[in-house]
Amino acid sequence: MYSMTNDAEKNPRFLKDGFGYENLKALPSADLKALASEVRSLMVKVVDENGGHLGSSLGVVELSIALLRKFNPLEDRIIFDVGHQSYPYKILTDRSDRFGTLRTSGGVSGFPRREESPFDHFDTGHSSTSISAALGYAKARDILKQKHHVVAVIGDASLINGLAFEALNHIKETQTRLIIVLNDNKHSITRRVGGFATMLAKLSASTSYNKIKSAIKDCCHALPKGAALEKRLEGIRDQIKTLVKPHNIFDELDINYWGPFDGHKIEETEMIFSLAKRYDRPVLLHFNTVKGKGLPEAERDPIRYHQIAPLAERCATGPKTTPTWSDAASLFTEQMAEKDERIVCLTAAMMTGAKLGDFKTRFPGRFFDVGIAESHMLTLAGGMAAGGLRPWVFIYSTFLQRAIDQLTHDVALQNLPVVVMVDRAGFVGSDGPTHHGLLDVSWTRAIPNLEIYAPADETSLRHIMSHAAGRMGPTVIRYPRGELPMSDALRGRESLGAVIVKEGEEWALLGHGVMVHEMLEARELAAASGLPVPAVVDLRRLKPLDLDTIDDILRRYPTVVVAEESYLNGGVGEFIAAHAAARVTETGSATRLKLLGVRDMFVPHATIAQQREICEITAKDIVNCGASCLEMKVNTA
Amino acid sequence: MYSMTNDAEKNPRFLKDGFGYENLKALPSADLKALASEVRSLMVKVVDENGGHLGSSLGVVELSIALLRKFNPLEDRIIFDVGHQSYPYKILTDRSDRFGTLRTSGGVSGFPRREESPFDHFDTGHSSTSISAALGYAKARDILKQKHHVVAVIGDASLINGLAFEALNHIKETQTRLIIVLNDNKHSITRRVGGFATMLAKLSASTSYNKIKSAIKDCCHALPKGAALEKRLEGIRDQIKTLVKPHNIFDELDINYWGPFDGHKIEETEMIFSLAKRYDRPVLLHFNTVKGKGLPEAERDPIRYHQIAPLAERCATGPKTTPTWSDAASLFTEQMAEKDERIVCLTAAMMTGAKLGDFKTRFPGRFFDVGIAESHMLTLAGGMAAGGLRPWVFIYSTFLQRAIDQLTHDVALQNLPVVVMVDRAGFVGSDGPTHHGLLDVSWTRAIPNLEIYAPADETSLRHIMSHAAGRMGPTVIRYPRGELPMSDALRGRESLGAVIVKEGEEWALLGHGVMVHEMLEARELAAASGLPVPAVVDLRRLKPLDLDTIDDILRRYPTVVVAEESYLNGGVGEFIAAHAAARVTETGSATRLKLLGVRDMFVPHATIAQQREICEITAKDIVNCGASCLEMKVNTA
Repeated sequence: MYSMTNDAEKNPRFLKDGFGYENLKALPSADLKALASEVRSLMVKVVDENGGHLGSSLGVVELSIALLRKFNPLEDRIIFDVGHQSYPYKILTDRSDRFGTLRTSGGVSGFPRREESPFDHFDTGHSSTSISAALGYAKARDILKQKHHVVAVIGDASLINGLAFEALNHIKETQTRLIIVLNDNKHSITRRVGGFATMLAKLSASTSYNKIKSAIKDCCHALPKGAALEKRLEGIRDQIKTLVKPHNIFDELDINYWGPFDGHKIEETEMIFSLAKRYDRPVLLHFNTVKGKGLPEAERDPIRYHQIAPLAERCATGPKTTPTWSDAASLFTEQMAEKDERIVCLTAAMMTGAKLGDFKTRFPGRFFDVGIAESHMLTLAGGMAAGGLRPWVFIYSTFLQRAIDQLTHDVALQNLPVVVMVDRAGFVGSDGPTHHGLLDVSWTRAIPNLEIYAPADETSLRHIMSHAAGRMGPTVIRYPRGELPMSDALRGRESLGAVIVKEGEEWALLGHGVMVHEMLEARELAAASGLPVPAVVDLRRLKPLDLDTIDDILRRYPTVVVAEESYLNGGVGEFIAAHAAARVTETGSATRLKLLGVRDMFVPHATIAQQREICEITAKDIVNCGASCLEMKVNTA
Repeated sequence: MYSMTNDAEKNPRFLKDGFGYENLKALPSADLKALASEVRSLMVKVVDENGGHLGSSLGVVELSIALLRKFNPLEDRIIFDVGHQSYPYKILTDRSDRFGTLRTSGGVSGFPRREESPFDHFDTGHSSTSISAALGYAKARDILKQKHHVVAVIGDASLINGLAFEALNHIKETQTRLIIVLNDNKHSITRRVGGFATMLAKLSASTSYNKIKSAIKDCCHALPKGAALEKRLEGIRDQIKTLVKPHNIFDELDINYWGPFDGHKIEETEMIFSLAKRYDRPVLLHFNTVKGKGLPEAERDPIRYHQIAPLAERCATGPKTTPTWSDAASLFTEQMAEKDERIVCLTAAMMTGAKLGDFKTRFPGRFFDVGIAESHMLTLAGGMAAGGLRPWVFIYSTFLQRAIDQLTHDVALQNLPVVVMVDRAGFVGSDGPTHHGLLDVSWTRAIPNLEIYAPADETSLRHIMSHAAGRMGPTVIRYPRGELPMSDALRGRESLGAVIVKEGEEWALLGHGVMVHEMLEARELAAASGLPVPAVVDLRRLKPLDLDTIDDILRRYPTVVVAEESYLNGGVGEFIAAHAAARVTETGSATRLKLLGVRDMFVPHATIAQQREICEITAKDIVNCGASCLEMKVNTA
């Protein structure tokens, strides 16, 4: 599908026979351009096959080569923010041979992982952690009297997150050496947001580049001259300070700013790194790069090529018939927004993923993309709701983790009518442990005033959203990644409480969201294998749980299995267990109750189906669990 | 104890007979200074009695008067950040009569509360939410075609939190009218931190004030002249822009900066507000104020007078014998730090509260106060641990809510040896719902790789801390506000797992932390009232729970009560219920199990004892619960 401008893919000169970091160091400068081309080809080929984050990684090939040649990546600590852009680094640090396993079970992770390689120094996945982590490494170095360098590589979109700002603000106090590489590709996943972006744009347009280039050339010319170098650098440092644009946010925070530079010119980038290594204060190096560089279609459409699905998946789709959960959630919001002009829609840089493009087009004045600023988004929504609007916040479960305090104080405490649409709830597949939505149930369940729902199909989603739109309090609606399932068993079953989808014999299954479909499949499997068929209950509302229906089930079925695609710790299953225990006390009757869910572990990258297998929450696991329970007798206490 | 410089307290001229907002509006300017003095006297008197946040409120008396006279606080939305500084506003908005009930059960809250008064527009408590909330209100106004003003009042220390920065960055995009009042008193609770602080200090030292004053005088002179005014303002606006210091972070973010001004000069402050109301773009007004203003001892020692305990409590203390939990936690850390130079200590502006002053004095190079930047603190700690240090993070439970994603990804996911010392776990008393530590158990329990402890006494705290210091993974240790209890029953019982503190008859109590003492008291009460005496088990390690001991109890005691000062939803009790349910399935025997804990509600301000009563988790409630369980029979399922 993708065609690179050269044939590096077919006949690699470098990336073969275990080409690794040592080879890179030894390569003459003249070969670097060709190497960059091969790295790009390999990335395109593998991402074509496995899916992944292409645009950012294509943009930092030269930067990564220069970093690896000028720093010692086993000794020096190079930390990539988020990690979308770490593919070239991975390929060039002894992982080219196995790069084909990217994002597959047991293969190379799509993000830096300390357990994967000694070249990876910090696990990332959520944005804007790199400066804080690098500062931690730098202080550890100082206190332990070590000498190495610490480098944070951060994109312009990540800089606007509050976490990055807190770290920038703290740098001055720490009085330590630290190099921040700002990879400015002008994009968040979509466009970048805010006043900060404008400031960077002004800096990027500055004419200082040619001047600084000659200054640096002078300096590097002097490099081998040893002692004299220090003095010369001293002079050049001041020269640099006056050459770059004098006023910017970094200067205000007492962090030296050098730039902007062209991040695709390897030799010059290497020179700048050489200078920065000699500098004894925190310095920020501003590089302009092109997202999608080298792949014309990605350069033209960087949003689409930010993250792409595997080729097979893309080809198989054909004319699209089944909408995703995100499609449906967005469409229903639009339909309600037509009728209620108080409805506004908020996203933190996930417009594309949450399928909000149409909403934005239709209601531009009621659409808010705040950039990667989840905490702000929830408090903003709280303010909007207090001011009379009906904010709908679209956020992935994993990113809600960053706004959970704001959801608690700025929405729930004040009982404000904010609807939080929690997308990507449950497993997410190949993005792995940093991106699963496995904590939202346990965390939101503990927050008072929230109503929490997990619809299992379109009927239910629409009905719950319509209820949320009218509610005078906060509502959380969680739904998974992927296609909206069509289920005859659920269709038309409008209810906010639990629905007994199927009655059964001897045992009952309780669950929510995607698990309802696994339970229905388990029912079929049970019938096929001669077991009693279980009742299937779609819990729907996770808080408050529909205790009438649950009591009815506990009364009528001696064995009950609860299944969740969420952590067992703090999950709905535990609440049901506590409720069942209270029934033992009150009614004297005990139920055989078994909870299925995600055990206390970080679940590695793999397909979603594999992740369910790892965690033993497939239809088959549900049947096995039922079979083992049914053989057991309950005696008198 | 406190003596004001005037006799306003004894003979109030204004603050009597229901003096309210309308009276304030009608007051001639000449009386405002005297009014300010009375407001201060009333605050000092009430805080002397009830305890509270004195310093910040003393500093904003004139600002609050000017705000209330120039804006319409029922129509315009004035939002105080954190709310420490909202006392004068409360007094002057029809709450002077009942201000004596400050922070007591059923009385005036120590923070803005929408349900308390129509003058309070947003509930606060955690820092740095005001700009986001104000922006939300401003966009609601625009979309709903209203005209009022929106004002965020934020302190300099709150500005460095990432949430405030995310909002500042977003302002440019929103193209809305918004007034930000920066109350710059040069302090966090202790000193303020970072590069941002330095920038504000430079701005404060600027000489622009006199020049802008005359410009504004001209302007206000022109105010009644109607139409001509607009044009004149246009000119003055540009004049103002050139008069203030040209370069600062706000300019970079495209927010107009006006200042600095003296926040204690009411008339001038009113003029500035008049100008700002006419301005159709976002503007930040920088006021210098003195924390503790008007109370000489508070001006001299603003850290001590930031928050003070009630007079009765302070006088009763006498020569101090019983250390607090914070004292002990800090002391043990110091002792370990003597022997292990990898140990560093981190706090987010809570040095005083967490009693870390001595650590800082002894190990200045290993002490890090990052300012109000909890998220950064946890990621910084992760980086430090990855770099070979042993970071001990001291954080209040309520503020950990702001760093829970960072604890998950940047510490737990990487299994890094960070110790999180969760202070103020459980109820906190008069600070109320925004400050309780009721969510940490439910939230941390869901995060893999964490070991979680809740010591109940000094022996246990020391033993657990010593274990944490040696552990190659992350540890959370939660402990409450207040004095370290001395208990003969617990002394010397070193164990990381659960400890059966007392055996009993027929029933057993399981609990952790402060609840262990309530349970011991419940045991005495039970004995006194002729009930069987319950066994008492100190759970200690909340994750992983000591299931051997718990099974032993479940085997031997047919009735078990679990008690927690934490939300029931997601609490340890639910885990035990799930475990007990699994035992029904596996062993066929059922236990009468009852969970006590905090119901699904935000618990209002009151004393801690009252809060336990409200939530029915006192020793007496435990006994009542046991009595009702013991009358019940368990039948065959």
